[in-house]
Amino acid sequence: MPPSAPVIIANMRFHTEYLTISTKRHREYINITPQVEAALAKSGIREGMILVSAMHITAGIYVNDAESGLIQDIDEWLEKLAPFREDYRHHRTGETNGDSHLKSLIVHHETTVPVTNGRLDFGPWQQVYYAEFDGQRAKRVIVKVMGE
Amino acid sequence: MPPSAPVIIANMRFHTEYLTISTKRHREYINITPQVEAALAKSGIREGMILVSAMHITAGIYVNDAESGLIQDIDEWLEKLAPFREDYRHHRTGETNGDSHLKSLIVHHETTVPVTNGRLDFGPWQQVYYAEFDGQRAKRVIVKVMGE
Amino acid sequence: MPPSAPVIIANMRFHTEYLTISTKRHREYINITPQVEAALAKSGIREGMILVSAMHITAGIYVNDAESGLIQDIDEWLEKLAPFREDYRHHRTGETNGDSHLKSLIVHHETTVPVTNGRLDFGPWQQVYYAEFDGQRAKRVIVKVMGE
Repeated sequence: MPPSAPVIIANMRFHTEYLTISTKRHREYINITPQVEAALAKSGIREGMILVSAMHITAGIYVNDAESGLIQDIDEWLEKLAPFREDYRHHRTGETNGDSHLKSLIVHHETTVPVTNGRLDFGPWQQVYYAEFDGQRAKRVIVKVMGE
Repeated sequence: MPPSAPVIIANMRFHTEYLTISTKRHREYINITPQVEAALAKSGIREGMILVSAMHITAGIYVNDAESGLIQDIDEWLEKLAPFREDYRHHRTGETNGDSHLKSLIVHHETTVPVTNGRLDFGPWQQVYYAEFDGQRAKRVIVKVMGE
Repeated sequence: MPPSAPVIIANMRFHTEYLTISTKRHREYINITPQVEAALAKSGIREGMILVSAMHITAGIYVNDAESGLIQDIDEWLEKLAPFREDYRHHRTGETNGDSHLKSLIVHHETTVPVTNGRLDFGPWQQVYYAEFDGQRAKRVIVKVMGE
């Protein structure tokens, strides 16, 4: 079947998992592609998509390269664009993580991964990353596989 | 049924609503979570997702905290990263909202909200925000609920 | 049928296409709305959504205005927020495109377009753009139409 042929299906399935992610550092970048692939395998879904979404407002989900130098570049760059500061208004609530919210807004908190022939339909270098901007505690990511 | 069990369903449903949002100020941040929840309730959908997408190129949709200090922080930060300037090339068309387009690109114009057991499957602090960057006129947001 | 009526359907369809995009310049912004509309027409899908996602980590997909001045503004602004630099750590791998990855993170690499009544359910100015940040070679975009 060529990639451009429509696939008619009879039944939709939804399969939902929740990942728990605990980091040792305040900011950390974790490749969760294996967990997303495991959820897809468990679902048995061959065609559809996967919504991967952080359930927190100080964390992000992004798709990019699994290259350690680049990850350090991303971290430095985010600190430059959305630096830690004492004087965020948000800190009047007692929090100290104003910058974590802003970093999360830049990288976005979710991605939708296409699924074709039972596999993540990614290019060769695409990997799903969980970006922790206020860590050292357990946080959750929802992985919802939808398709046939 | 545990969260990791696949749910097999027979019929997909789509339910589409359009929100109209009028702001008094040029920039404004509006929590539209109640409207998204109302659309979900009306749809009767229990499992699936909701696409919430601004239908304008000078507005955004983002998911973050309903905390007024943080919202002011976000607004100041966006003005710093994508400031109003007289000399955007876009202004040669007669527009004066070049910065509004750039602010919209940062926060993104859409989100996909997971739905499980008939509820927005959010973490405790996640709220859907409409971010107006060129307001004082009626604008639209599409809310499309998809699932079973 | 009013826009807020639920649509019950029996069969989901998935239709997948891969666009190949070759640019002459290192950075380039290409309106791919016609190709997305062509994929929708070929699918025969009337209700649902379209996932449009770059399969590369140095390219983006965004939705905004087809106005050449604004596109130049976006390009200059991205270069300011995520500038080319010699000294990205990523360059120790032999690459020179650290800035391309960061630019891609800002604009995001994907969008989900709502489909209603067989058309892209966009506001009047919304267009889907492919943003190339490391071009002069063939790159791919997946377009997956899902619905009924």
